[in-house]
Amino acid sequence: MAENDKFIVPGFQASGIAAGIKEDGKKDLALLHSEVPAKAAGVFTTNVFKAAPVLLDMERIKQGSSRAIIINSGNANAATGEDGYQDAVKMARFCAGALQIDESQVLVASTGVIGRKLPIDKVAGSVSRLVKGLSPGGIPEAAQAIMTTDAYPKIQFREGPVGGSEICICGIAKGAGMIEPNMATLLSFILTDADLDDQAMKRALREATDRSLNAISVDGCMSTNDTVIILANGLAGNRKIRTSTRDFAVFTGMLTDVMTELAKLIVRDGEGATKLIEIVVEGAKTAGEARTIAYQIARSNLVKTAFYGADPNWGRVISAVGAAGVTIDSASVELYFDGLPLFKQGQGVSNHLKELAEVMKRDQIKVLVKLGQGTKDFRVYSSDLTLDYVKLNAHYTT
Amino acid sequence: MAENDKFIVPGFQASGIAAGIKEDGKKDLALLHSEVPAKAAGVFTTNVFKAAPVLLDMERIKQGSSRAIIINSGNANAATGEDGYQDAVKMARFCAGALQIDESQVLVASTGVIGRKLPIDKVAGSVSRLVKGLSPGGIPEAAQAIMTTDAYPKIQFREGPVGGSEICICGIAKGAGMIEPNMATLLSFILTDADLDDQAMKRALREATDRSLNAISVDGCMSTNDTVIILANGLAGNRKIRTSTRDFAVFTGMLTDVMTELAKLIVRDGEGATKLIEIVVEGAKTAGEARTIAYQIARSNLVKTAFYGADPNWGRVISAVGAAGVTIDSASVELYFDGLPLFKQGQGVSNHLKELAEVMKRDQIKVLVKLGQGTKDFRVYSSDLTLDYVKLNAHYTT
Repeated sequence: MAENDKFIVPGFQASGIAAGIKEDGKKDLALLHSEVPAKAAGVFTTNVFKAAPVLLDMERIKQGSSRAIIINSGNANAATGEDGYQDAVKMARFCAGALQIDESQVLVASTGVIGRKLPIDKVAGSVSRLVKGLSPGGIPEAAQAIMTTDAYPKIQFREGPVGGSEICICGIAKGAGMIEPNMATLLSFILTDADLDDQAMKRALREATDRSLNAISVDGCMSTNDTVIILANGLAGNRKIRTSTRDFAVFTGMLTDVMTELAKLIVRDGEGATKLIEIVVEGAKTAGEARTIAYQIARSNLVKTAFYGADPNWGRVISAVGAAGVTIDSASVELYFDGLPLFKQGQGVSNHLKELAEVMKRDQIKVLVKLGQGTKDFRVYSSDLTLDYVKLNAHYTT
Repeated sequence: MAENDKFIVPGFQASGIAAGIKEDGKKDLALLHSEVPAKAAGVFTTNVFKAAPVLLDMERIKQGSSRAIIINSGNANAATGEDGYQDAVKMARFCAGALQIDESQVLVASTGVIGRKLPIDKVAGSVSRLVKGLSPGGIPEAAQAIMTTDAYPKIQFREGPVGGSEICICGIAKGAGMIEPNMATLLSFILTDADLDDQAMKRALREATDRSLNAISVDGCMSTNDTVIILANGLAGNRKIRTSTRDFAVFTGMLTDVMTELAKLIVRDGEGATKLIEIVVEGAKTAGEARTIAYQIARSNLVKTAFYGADPNWGRVISAVGAAGVTIDSASVELYFDGLPLFKQGQGVSNHLKELAEVMKRDQIKVLVKLGQGTKDFRVYSSDLTLDYVKLNAHYTT
């Protein structure tokens, strides 16, 4: 079995080509296509400056169905005004023409540098080649074509019984950036042959996103372009999935699994990252407070650099907890790295320096903060801050 | 005139010595002493995990007067529990003994690594030498002894007529860290011979702090140790400064000037920093919204790395503005770097690429965001994120 045969979703085709948008000649144009009308739902950036394709998709997704998503990398088509919006419309129109479908059935996504005009002629000149390249095994090529500074493409696939049929879910994503609060663009596209009603699909996508792509240090899709779209074509013939059923729970679990693995791949591939840091805050009064503290740790450059350097400077984590603006009794806070107690009852636990040095060298570390204030918790995945991160981002446009 | 004679405040003495707290043998113990009881006021960190000396000072400052401040670098005496608190008390007591004053008249500050026991024996063994070293010209030595990763000591001095007398203000500070949201410790001590009433002194310090040390990317003293203390001994014999008078405005202006220059020195000396970025947000509906947006830009690692690399990627600034969570009409936002228009009416102003390349090479750059939503503004000073920042912070404790 060829490698790409692992990533086939019945009724879907994909392709990815180099259209010349990226100056280095790498793949930069992707297409995901459903042979039949598919249900569509999306989660989009909350940034005030939404990129043109986001504005277009937010309108088109309301009709609840779609046939295709065309994505370019190398240019974000953001901060490009009315001209940029018209370019996004054209990008969909060219694609619809080549696919011979209605242009309202095409969604668009872009990622890359902000504030430069999309080279729409290059899209126009490449779209028939893009459509000709469509194949059921083409998803990995599409995953490649949506990359920007990603070191590798990100694909996850799951299959299993739901509602009396075998269904499958395949997701691709691009991340990069370190990420939130740095607003690198996150794109993720999910294809499934499951049959869901509208409400179930929207809720499953929202729940899975909140537990995965919104629980890495990305925080609610903050770039101008962040986009997550699911297409479900129903070809699996399963009993239609509705909310508040066991089928819904099983499907949402599978979807969360796919998206969590994509999220971890994104963190691991954060620009220059060498470590995956899992931050768990337990015992908060509210989930919101747990989340605030978890992100305060995840965002601290001092914490991130300490993990990069394997520096056992756990005081930076405690300082971040205390700086989160959440009222807590400092005497009840406990801190653990990979189970090793480091801080209890207001002071350091000093007899673990040797074990701590070992823990700090690992490439995946769990930071556990027990607040002792309540019963709510939150988990976020973060990465370290490295020399390569700075090198990569100091010269991105040039 | 000797260099150090520039920094003399009548009635104050200072010293700075190496007590062996820092392993590299550099100066690490400082003393500021007023020959007569001085009025004292302070601004302290809001971090939940306040370091032991902060807890002690917050109690002692309530009495409104003080004779001395003893400061160590190399150890933060934070996350050290009840033992740490007792060490802070001892540090003041040893100092009071050597100065032959009441121990309640001594304030304490510490900066350095969190979570390690303060080597109080080294303080005990050095305090008489510290007191013997006191001299009117000793302020620069004290400024050296409070440094951690600072590249240079930070001193500012102003004099001028207030209330019928010549008064002077001398401030020292240590910063480092990049800084907020990274919680490096900020310490600043202000000595003046002016005579103020209690309310005027507190309000002048608060106003000056908010416009200077709280308006760099430090954000409200968030480390476990952040401390700003002013001592005013009244020896200038001026008409006592009271709030709502012209004298108060003049004094507060001088104090703000001293502290703003200290703040800029701190930003310029942010770990590894090569550039001073002045971020001004104008035209907000409220000062709070202007502040939120200014800090969203100042904190963005993507913005900071772009300035480091002189990368004209202004889209990252726009993305940060849009991600701040403030509702604004994106079409009315304008962006300028050193007066050069880059973004207007929802899209980039593309005909300035050559000038922009020149601007990006400067070592001080003004980022101006005009929101067009109202009349409030906010200014914050930030620095770039560099390779040296990561190198410095990846191996701080080791």
